[in-house]
Amino acid sequence: MPKVVDHEERRRELVEATWGIIARHGMSGATMRQIAAEAGFANGALKPYFPTKAGLLEATYAFVFDRTNRRAEVATRGLTGLAALEAFCREVLPLDDERLDEARVVIPFWQEAAHDPRAAELNNASMAQWRVSMSAWMREAGAAGDLDPAVDVPAAADVLLNFLLGSQVSAVIDSTATTASGLERQLAAQLDRLRPR
Amino acid sequence: MPKVVDHEERRRELVEATWGIIARHGMSGATMRQIAAEAGFANGALKPYFPTKAGLLEATYAFVFDRTNRRAEVATRGLTGLAALEAFCREVLPLDDERLDEARVVIPFWQEAAHDPRAAELNNASMAQWRVSMSAWMREAGAAGDLDPAVDVPAAADVLLNFLLGSQVSAVIDSTATTASGLERQLAAQLDRLRPR
Repeated sequence: MPKVVDHEERRRELVEATWGIIARHGMSGATMRQIAAEAGFANGALKPYFPTKAGLLEATYAFVFDRTNRRAEVATRGLTGLAALEAFCREVLPLDDERLDEARVVIPFWQEAAHDPRAAELNNASMAQWRVSMSAWMREAGAAGDLDPAVDVPAAADVLLNFLLGSQVSAVIDSTATTASGLERQLAAQLDRLRPR
Repeated sequence: MPKVVDHEERRRELVEATWGIIARHGMSGATMRQIAAEAGFANGALKPYFPTKAGLLEATYAFVFDRTNRRAEVATRGLTGLAALEAFCREVLPLDDERLDEARVVIPFWQEAAHDPRAAELNNASMAQWRVSMSAWMREAGAAGDLDPAVDVPAAADVLLNFLLGSQVSAVIDSTATTASGLERQLAAQLDRLRPR
C-alpha cells in the first residue's frame, strides 16, 4: 500500500518544531535546516511546505494565536462581562511557561510584521478580533450595570490590548521585574478601574 | 597635519545610519555592508567600532532610549505629579514620525534581548529607570492629594509601562487601527483613572 502523506499533519509538525526552536533559541538562531532536523524531516523536504523562513514564522504565529484563542474559549465559557474579559486576559498574559513560550514567538513575529505587509495583515486581523471581543465584554458589563459609565469602551479595549502586548515583552525579557503575581496585580488594578465607582 | 579621528563621533554616525536603515527597511534587511555604506564608511571600517550586528543594535537602542529621555527631561521640566507623568508618557508614545522611528528600533532590539543576556540587561536597566520615574511622579501626585488613594503605585507604574511598550507595537504594525488621536484618548483614559474619585 502506498504511504499516504497527511500534508496538514506535516505542516503542523513543522510549525510545532519551529515554535520549540524559537522558544529555546530565538528566531535569529533558527535555521531552516535546524527546523527540518528537529521535525524529523530530510533537509530540503521543508521547502515544499514553507519556502521561506518568513512564511514559517507567520504560520507559527497563527498556530500560537489559535492556541491562545482555544484556551480562551474554554476559559470564558459561561462567563459574561468583566468576568469573561478577565478570563480572556489571563489566557494572553504570560503567567506560566506555556504562555511565555507563546510570547517568545510573538516578539520575532512583530519584527517581521514591522516590515512585511503580509505578516502585518495577519497581526492586524488577529488584533482586530481581540478588540471586538474585549469591547463586546465591556459593553455587556455596561448593560448589566457592572461598568463605570464614564469608561470610553473602544479606548479602554485598546488600552487593555496594548497592556497585554507590552506584558509579553516584559515577561520574556525582564523576567525578574515581571513575575506572574505582579502581572496578576496589574490586571486586577486595570479591571478594578473599569467597575462602577 | 595628521587627520584626527573622533571615534565617538564616528560611532554616533554609525548608530544614526543604523537607526535610519532599521526604520526604513527593518533589522533583518540591514546588512553591516549596507550600514557602512550609508554612514559613508569603507566596508570593513565598521568592524573596529562594532564587531557584531547585535552590538550595533544595542548601541542604536541605547541612542534612541537616550534621545527619548532627553526629550522627556525638557517636556517634564517644572512639572510635578500626574502632569509630569503625562508629559513623560507623551514622549514615549509613538505620536509622530520621530517617535514611530524610535519604536521601529525597539522592536528588533526586543527580539535580540529575548535571547541575548547583554541586550536584556540593557533593556531591563532602561525599564527600571522608567519605572522609578513613573512611580515617583505617582507618589508625588499622592502627596499632593492628586492620586486616588486606592491606587497600587508599583502595579500602576507597571501597567502604564506595559501599555507604552504595547502601544509601540500597535503603532508600528497596526497603524490603521492605532492613530495618534486614539493613543491620546488611551493615555487620557488611563490618567483619568488614577485621579481621586
